[in-house]
Amino acid sequence: MTLAQDRSAAPSAPAPDEVFGAHEGGKLATGLTAPLADARDLSIAYTPGVADVCRAIADDASLASRYTWAHRLVAVVSDGTAVLGLGDIGPRASLPVMEGKSALFKSFAGLDSIPLVLDTTDVDEIVETLVRLRPTFGAVNLEDVSAPRCFELERRLIEALDCPVMHDDQHGTAVVLLAALDGACRLQGRPLSGLKIVISGAGAAGIACARILLAAGASDIVLLDSRGIVDAGRGGEKADLAAVTNPRGITGGIAEAMDGADVFVGLSSAALPEDVLATMAPEAMVFALSNPDPEVHPDVAARHAAIVATGRSDFPNQINNVLAFPGIFRGALDAHARRITDGMKVAAARAIADVVADELTPARIVPGPFDPRVAPAVAAAVARAAEEAGVASA
Amino acid sequence: MTLAQDRSAAPSAPAPDEVFGAHEGGKLATGLTAPLADARDLSIAYTPGVADVCRAIADDASLASRYTWAHRLVAVVSDGTAVLGLGDIGPRASLPVMEGKSALFKSFAGLDSIPLVLDTTDVDEIVETLVRLRPTFGAVNLEDVSAPRCFELERRLIEALDCPVMHDDQHGTAVVLLAALDGACRLQGRPLSGLKIVISGAGAAGIACARILLAAGASDIVLLDSRGIVDAGRGGEKADLAAVTNPRGITGGIAEAMDGADVFVGLSSAALPEDVLATMAPEAMVFALSNPDPEVHPDVAARHAAIVATGRSDFPNQINNVLAFPGIFRGALDAHARRITDGMKVAAARAIADVVADELTPARIVPGPFDPRVAPAVAAAVARAAEEAGVASA
Repeated sequence: MTLAQDRSAAPSAPAPDEVFGAHEGGKLATGLTAPLADARDLSIAYTPGVADVCRAIADDASLASRYTWAHRLVAVVSDGTAVLGLGDIGPRASLPVMEGKSALFKSFAGLDSIPLVLDTTDVDEIVETLVRLRPTFGAVNLEDVSAPRCFELERRLIEALDCPVMHDDQHGTAVVLLAALDGACRLQGRPLSGLKIVISGAGAAGIACARILLAAGASDIVLLDSRGIVDAGRGGEKADLAAVTNPRGITGGIAEAMDGADVFVGLSSAALPEDVLATMAPEAMVFALSNPDPEVHPDVAARHAAIVATGRSDFPNQINNVLAFPGIFRGALDAHARRITDGMKVAAARAIADVVADELTPARIVPGPFDPRVAPAVAAAVARAAEEAGVASA
Repeated sequence: MTLAQDRSAAPSAPAPDEVFGAHEGGKLATGLTAPLADARDLSIAYTPGVADVCRAIADDASLASRYTWAHRLVAVVSDGTAVLGLGDIGPRASLPVMEGKSALFKSFAGLDSIPLVLDTTDVDEIVETLVRLRPTFGAVNLEDVSAPRCFELERRLIEALDCPVMHDDQHGTAVVLLAALDGACRLQGRPLSGLKIVISGAGAAGIACARILLAAGASDIVLLDSRGIVDAGRGGEKADLAAVTNPRGITGGIAEAMDGADVFVGLSSAALPEDVLATMAPEAMVFALSNPDPEVHPDVAARHAAIVATGRSDFPNQINNVLAFPGIFRGALDAHARRITDGMKVAAARAIADVVADELTPARIVPGPFDPRVAPAVAAAVARAAEEAGVASA
């Protein structure tokens, strides 16, 4: 199957009228788990019956996780500072994305979820707000928060809240990339540890990808940002990374980084020129993940690489976070995990790759985003990893 | 029909097993307004389609009310300090009540609603938290916040948020009481302005009842609290009320207040002795609203009063907030009201009374809580009042 053939079967882009119509009134609704149709229903769900349930929780706080929806409720939290490719459009304009995210949690993992959009970009204030709201929810999916604030915010929320917290733009992307790379390695019979990997883009997603690949056994990663190869002279988040990447100590820009590389991971919109691509090692893998415009067109990439993946639904091998976050949160909440560890993220990636282990082809290194086997497999693997890591509670 | 006969048809109290079973896993769920079944659905509800909607709202903030769920979402907000008759049991233990309240908003008025329970009792912090979350919701139903903090909290939230805010324990109760009193006055052909009214209990609900009755035309209200008749010597919230109540300047306790009174409103658990009840004027009205134990048993009250109402579902004339708050918030949100005025509350009460205007009997001065005519009538009346008051936007 050529890429062009596959693309011909892809859905056409939705028309603006259709898009706006579908968002009219919002995409979420609340519902009741049981009807309130008569006085008896009311006496059970509300007064006077509810008083017994309140009293029981007041006597034993652990019962809140049994008799309320909060312990399985995912708060999708954003300040609207880094929304899609649109940048800092503010909390109000970010809400359609957050509603969509909450809808995905429900649709893919059966988890209830509400958007909480915040009219502040101050990290202290966001942490404080969520600490005050802690009894309201069971987990926090951070979304579309700009770098470098997102690193500090996630770190501080993990410290302050005794529940799963994950910035999906970092770790969801990283988990799915690792899954895809795992699938590609299995297909080619090569170990991850032997690959020369270039990551173009050292923002939130690029850094998280580098970290998870290192955690999973990668040994030769070169990070690129707008200043070229990230080396020991860098500060901030990148200083830590510079210490564990670029083991061959190369210098320069994309041409130097890509010469002889096995894997290209695109997470910036910086174009990958074909002549640079042509210098990759044989059997190269190209993950051009920028959306909607990949760093290199998949048809061009296919001339030089054995395996090509993008973030787009109209090409094979779509690297879509929806493969990861629903199952990760579901597994963490199923296990009553206090946090999401690196091990749980790696376990999620392995589980995604395992789903298609017997179906691998160059055009199928990851499952499709609607594969119903994925979320349950990820949830089970993540719950198991939480128990093994000792962060689960009974 | 005697009260005893009516009571025989009442539902039996729910068994603990049944109550706890019904609360297992919580009573709320989130849902999708449209399915996310395939790549095309995803491209419309989420990326890339959603970006057009975000961009439109970023360009014109008023579009948020059209393309998100937030503008019709009622946040049920509590710190758990005055929950039912249980007192300060904290936010976690209050959550079953707040979930029930959110469920009632959906069931009775078709409004989406989420509980936000706060792990702070500091008024500044609660206000600050809701201001930061402002883009998340469209209205605030304050619930089960202890007095006197509830007065300051409601006042400051109304100032800080450009959306409907109402403390239901105060105003929901007041609206339904006014509706019932209105029905009773219509039945007896007496104007509210001529009635001698005693309100026993000067907490949040008692004060709100006094205020709405004054706004509706009552001229002779005597408030009682644990220290007796509220008079000009009192401080705080009660000082303001002392200035506009007790026009005959009587002193003493419940015996002095009730001598010759036309209306008794019970909002404390203080018992009303039968010998005091016997001193009321002919054709007296008794509203014994404490739950689950009214200030006087309805059968005893009926020996001395022409009209008897309670908060209980197993006697006639149940004064239940559910007659008021769903329609009030629905009407306020339908009208895009920036706040809920006294006029909107009085209009809600009149609308409730109007529903049974042609069906009035001493055992039917208000509609039953499940009367499907109520919420739409209240919503329409409240929206109209908002427009007349100039607090609605286009």
